[in-house]
Amino acid sequence: MKYEFREEKSVYGDLIFESKFWKLFLAPSQRCLGTSVLALKREVMNLRDLTSSEWKEFSLIVKITEIAMNKSFKPDLYNWACFKNAAYRDESKGFKAKIHWHLHPRYQDPIIFEGIKFIDPDFGYPPGLKEKTIPDKLREKIIKHIRTNF
Amino acid sequence: MKYEFREEKSVYGDLIFESKFWKLFLAPSQRCLGTSVLALKREVMNLRDLTSSEWKEFSLIVKITEIAMNKSFKPDLYNWACFKNAAYRDESKGFKAKIHWHLHPRYQDPIIFEGIKFIDPDFGYPPGLKEKTIPDKLREKIIKHIRTNF
Repeated sequence: MKYEFREEKSVYGDLIFESKFWKLFLAPSQRCLGTSVLALKREVMNLRDLTSSEWKEFSLIVKITEIAMNKSFKPDLYNWACFKNAAYRDESKGFKAKIHWHLHPRYQDPIIFEGIKFIDPDFGYPPGLKEKTIPDKLREKIIKHIRTNF
Repeated sequence: MKYEFREEKSVYGDLIFESKFWKLFLAPSQRCLGTSVLALKREVMNLRDLTSSEWKEFSLIVKITEIAMNKSFKPDLYNWACFKNAAYRDESKGFKAKIHWHLHPRYQDPIIFEGIKFIDPDFGYPPGLKEKTIPDKLREKIIKHIRTNF
């Protein structure tokens, strides 16, 4: 599987990498350190409409991303979800219910990154909706760190 | 893809069908009508460890299940999630963080099934954790109805 690192900003966050069919973004909220969004590049509304090539690449990305996150932050588990609820919450924002996956690395214990303590306040439960924003410089360091582990 | 309908009860609910690698259960809570759990039969803890055959069958099940749910209840969208948080919430119950997917059909408007009104109280947001149990007879009717649409 080929993928490249480059800069891009979107509603899903800041690009970590792009592959043939998918883009992985560091999510705007870092409530759980490393929270990411894996968005399909093609405009598709339902998982049943993914092609076998898109599924195949998705499964490879799950694998390399979990391995890279393990090396980066050693989370205890991963939550993967394809929800698309927000598209129905606030259509005025112009969101469409396009296929994208939320990846939440989950942490039983606090983790220190770049001297800053991250606590997963909902461990054992679905991640809360309350957003946690962090400085842009710190986001850049997180992305750089994750990329070194791909 | 081959699958069979038979009876089985588990912590995940009541079996709807079984395929080579996966079992689809009607979940104990029917907060969203048709809520199901798709459990891998093999004991695997992380999505990165699924085989390509297991992924392939998963993608086919996503397709046929969304189509069957469309025919059964016409939900507005589907939430798919592989979380495994509960395994860390109450280990005394003996749960293991085995791979299983939660499927929540989501409804913008109330839906009537067998004369009973189902409302999705969290539409536009992740499904709430509060459980909604329904009578066994009604569960049987839901399973029978879904099965006729596979």
